[in-house]
Amino acid sequence: MTTLVFERIAVVGIGLIGSSIVRGARAKGLAGTIAVADHAGPHLARARELGLGDDWHADAGDAAAGADLVMVAVPVGACEAVAKAIAPRLKPGAIVTDVGSVKASVVRQMKPHLPAGVHLIPGHPVAGTEFSGPDAGFAELFENRWSILTPPDDVDPAALARLVAFWRGLGANVETMTAEHHDIVLAITSHLPHLIAYNIVGTAADVEQVTQSEVMKFSAGGFRDFTRIAASDPTMWRDVFLHNREAVLEVLGRFTEDLFALQRQIRWGEGDKLFDLFTRTRAIRRGIIGLGQETPAPDFGRRKG
Amino acid sequence: MTTLVFERIAVVGIGLIGSSIVRGARAKGLAGTIAVADHAGPHLARARELGLGDDWHADAGDAAAGADLVMVAVPVGACEAVAKAIAPRLKPGAIVTDVGSVKASVVRQMKPHLPAGVHLIPGHPVAGTEFSGPDAGFAELFENRWSILTPPDDVDPAALARLVAFWRGLGANVETMTAEHHDIVLAITSHLPHLIAYNIVGTAADVEQVTQSEVMKFSAGGFRDFTRIAASDPTMWRDVFLHNREAVLEVLGRFTEDLFALQRQIRWGEGDKLFDLFTRTRAIRRGIIGLGQETPAPDFGRRKG
Ligand SMILES: NC(=O)c1ccc[n+]([C@@H]2O[C@H](COP(=O)([O-])OP(=O)(O)OC[C@H]3O[C@@H](n4cnc5c(N)ncnc54)[C@H](OP(=O)(O)O)[C@@H]3O)[C@@H](O)[C@H]2O)c1
Ligand SMILES: NC(=O)c1ccc[n+]([C@@H]2O[C@H](COP(=O)([O-])OP(=O)(O)OC[C@H]3O[C@@H](n4cnc5c(N)ncnc54)[C@H](OP(=O)(O)O)[C@@H]3O)[C@@H](O)[C@H]2O)c1
Repeated sequence: MTTLVFERIAVVGIGLIGSSIVRGARAKGLAGTIAVADHAGPHLARARELGLGDDWHADAGDAAAGADLVMVAVPVGACEAVAKAIAPRLKPGAIVTDVGSVKASVVRQMKPHLPAGVHLIPGHPVAGTEFSGPDAGFAELFENRWSILTPPDDVDPAALARLVAFWRGLGANVETMTAEHHDIVLAITSHLPHLIAYNIVGTAADVEQVTQSEVMKFSAGGFRDFTRIAASDPTMWRDVFLHNREAVLEVLGRFTEDLFALQRQIRWGEGDKLFDLFTRTRAIRRGIIGLGQETPAPDFGRRKG
Repeated sequence: MTTLVFERIAVVGIGLIGSSIVRGARAKGLAGTIAVADHAGPHLARARELGLGDDWHADAGDAAAGADLVMVAVPVGACEAVAKAIAPRLKPGAIVTDVGSVKASVVRQMKPHLPAGVHLIPGHPVAGTEFSGPDAGFAELFENRWSILTPPDDVDPAALARLVAFWRGLGANVETMTAEHHDIVLAITSHLPHLIAYNIVGTAADVEQVTQSEVMKFSAGGFRDFTRIAASDPTMWRDVFLHNREAVLEVLGRFTEDLFALQRQIRWGEGDKLFDLFTRTRAIRRGIIGLGQETPAPDFGRRKG
């Protein structure tokens, strides 16, 4: 039984996400031929060295030529440049999709450049690690994770079905929603957590009474959890905040409001209110574990000692 | 070669930390006899069932009688009650210590009740998980973690040395500092991270545009990391915030100030400043990994899929 979904695919950007897609597609036989594009540079050379894909291109247009599916896996801020590069080379009926962490901006950047007859169906796999580049990817990254697609209202159902089949082939669950709804959902489940993590790590570096060495030595009390996502790729995350500004500012406003309430409870010694919040928050983790999106192992199953 | 450090120890509170100490002390032969105390209730019954210790007491005073070391491992807010219970039963020259996450308050709560001739040397092992109770503990919890002691200026050097030997026997590194310095260091490396985590999980539960189910499904984008520490014991954490109020409010003020600066950078599209912060924060994680306080495995080495 063959699982081939697309005869030829092109992956533009061979970093963590792009290389995970190439590895997964190869492992599951989802694509006949895989063309890979990136900047002329170390990532492209490394992809060739690792045998990620079948042909390698420093020009995204060359990779996109003849492809049934073009998967754009570059930082969100680079999507317009990629759209311009691939547009003249796309074959009629091709599907163009992406994996960017923000969706409305990607549509704004790409749609105006794409020719009629090409299907733009933006996407975002909610899966990743704090590492980047072609060596960081692995075929199982999307297994039992959610991949969100934000098809336009007038999407071609057959094109959508093929893209859904591709993601399911990679092991993902698929959900569709509007780009705008995606952006507010991810603002709370991903962008705000990253912002807060970056911020607390920055604050800890600057508090004069406590040395850097103390912050690092005594980080097992909780701080170290935040440093993982605060070690994520700076380019990717700068682009996320610049391109999802409104939604991020909205949820940040809510976060700050709640934090001031908590601050007041601490100042006035309102132990019961603190206890109530701290009890309520446990249920959410149980729910996430129940949905298979988190490990129940203590301490994330971190290596002991 | 015997590693016996104390003839008889008493552990008051047989939860995550208390039971880890009992398990470690037994495994390493650090104590001749181990008396365990807790409320009359399921934890005490479970400790007996698991064979944690040699004798079990619903009265902390009964456990403390004759002990060379009394290790208090209860929520910070319960320390005064324990001091009152053990004080009349302590043998001259006994060492009284604790594991509470706050130190100046513990001294204020316990010292006035303890008789002269008893050595109060507060402590705090910077190690833990999000679980609690006697089943959650394990002997290796303190291995290669830091245990902080906050001895008074006039501490008896021999008593301090024995307590240090006990923690080293459990596998910990030991550092001493003042109670006040401890409280500001831990405010930034542990208490603020917990507060922020509880807060963001609370905010996520309340944003109307996003359903609970969406928050849980799409949590792998970063949010789920925060739910681990927001699942920690509510009683313990209520007590931490009530008893380390000043230091927590101080570092929280710094955090909020920095967050407003970040918010402004997002609003005004200052990508370079965002990029600089996001680059700076990576170094701190590398430092923590270098010190052996964190795993370098992607995603904390979480189970894949
Ligand atoms: N990391 C995650 O956890 C995660 C999860 C879900 C979605 N995403 C999204 O996935 C996308 C890629 O992220 P990633 O983590 O895979 O990043 P990554 O590992 O840094 O890979 C991105 C790759 O794209 C290349 N690139 C940048 N601009 C390009 C252009 N104009 N043309 C061709 N190649 C270009 C980069 O090369 P250079 O490094 O040489 O510039 C790099 O090789 C981003 O939009 C991100 O928002 C990330
Ligand atoms: N968890 C961590 O990660 C961590 C790390 C370092 C330090 N600490 C500190 O360690 C201490 C204990 O924390 P833990 O995580 O071990 O909590 P835990 O698992 O909840 O254990 C605390 C135990 O103390 C008992 N207890 C409460 N009041 C008592 C009293 N007056 N007399 C006798 N027993 C009493 C509790 O019984 P009931 O549940 O029946 O009340 C429970 O069995 C806290 O001060 C905490 O700040 C915790």
